[in-house]
Amino acid sequence: MVPKDILQAIKQMTGFTDLEIGIVLQYFEPKNFKKKTTLLEAGSTAKEVYFILNGCIRLFYEKDGVDVSAYFFTEKMFAGAYDSFITQKTSRHAIETIEDCQVLAISYKALQALFIEFPKMNEFVRKVLEERFVSLHELFTAQILDSPEERYLNLLKERPELLHRVPQHQIATYLGITPVSLSRIRNRVAKK
Amino acid sequence: MVPKDILQAIKQMTGFTDLEIGIVLQYFEPKNFKKKTTLLEAGSTAKEVYFILNGCIRLFYEKDGVDVSAYFFTEKMFAGAYDSFITQKTSRHAIETIEDCQVLAISYKALQALFIEFPKMNEFVRKVLEERFVSLHELFTAQILDSPEERYLNLLKERPELLHRVPQHQIATYLGITPVSLSRIRNRVAKK
Repeated sequence: MVPKDILQAIKQMTGFTDLEIGIVLQYFEPKNFKKKTTLLEAGSTAKEVYFILNGCIRLFYEKDGVDVSAYFFTEKMFAGAYDSFITQKTSRHAIETIEDCQVLAISYKALQALFIEFPKMNEFVRKVLEERFVSLHELFTAQILDSPEERYLNLLKERPELLHRVPQHQIATYLGITPVSLSRIRNRVAKK
Repeated sequence: MVPKDILQAIKQMTGFTDLEIGIVLQYFEPKNFKKKTTLLEAGSTAKEVYFILNGCIRLFYEKDGVDVSAYFFTEKMFAGAYDSFITQKTSRHAIETIEDCQVLAISYKALQALFIEFPKMNEFVRKVLEERFVSLHELFTAQILDSPEERYLNLLKERPELLHRVPQHQIATYLGITPVSLSRIRNRVAKK
């Protein structure tokens, strides 16, 4: 069911034994989503988070009819509206797939049960949250300190594959600029 | 050493027994800081985080010589540059006390040792991180979706004490506006 290389990655990420991974995986449900599937609408409460086996999931806001991308999740990441999932309150942002996706989904209830059956899960989730926190803080910092060009160069350095997988207008709103400005930045950077 | 009401609060937050709290507290060091003490400079690496017994600590950025407040930590919160502390890489923001502070400090090394001696700490730190993540995500969302007036009203609702404890120019940069605009918003809101 779960491909071997992914099992290997999970083993490395968690430090769990095969037996422990077996216990944990029972709480997850494999799901497939077509490209452009809405996983969560703004105003709803996140019931699940998704460990991505294949594909790309986007977190975005809508403001005055304009769609603003905030984050892109790819393989071996836990995608989701963590803030809504943690608090079980309504989300102010939405989530959708931007490619066909294979995921392992875990519901809020299942995760709480897993913490009780298998307390070691706390350590793993702590580490996942640390990564997500650092990533969100980098984004927050970049919004305050960096120019769009600096943010583009950082994306090119840290996650170059996104520039091919994600539509240009979504990359542009992620950088806080128009597609025309993005195109100018790309040309400028390409000439350097 | 640690006041009774704080011990009670720690007990409620963690669900630990008195014995367990005793173990955990051994890893913390009580420290006192005068108002306006720099706890971390931008460009340095965070060696400690602080559980605040008394006082207020500010996280801020410097951009083109302008000081931009990003977050205020108060009593019973863990204050710190979590992103730098977690990754043990240099921080892009600074931290300072804005009141005289009594804290319990824990170093990165001590926390790693505590995770090993007392694995239950993972659950508590997971919960602390969840709170911090949600709080940072709210701030991130507000920057995208809310006007300065909406952000001011939210601060007034959620953390009204900050408006008395924190200098007005710091509240202004936190809201992304000038002190003059803040003063206008305050007057407008007071008249409603």
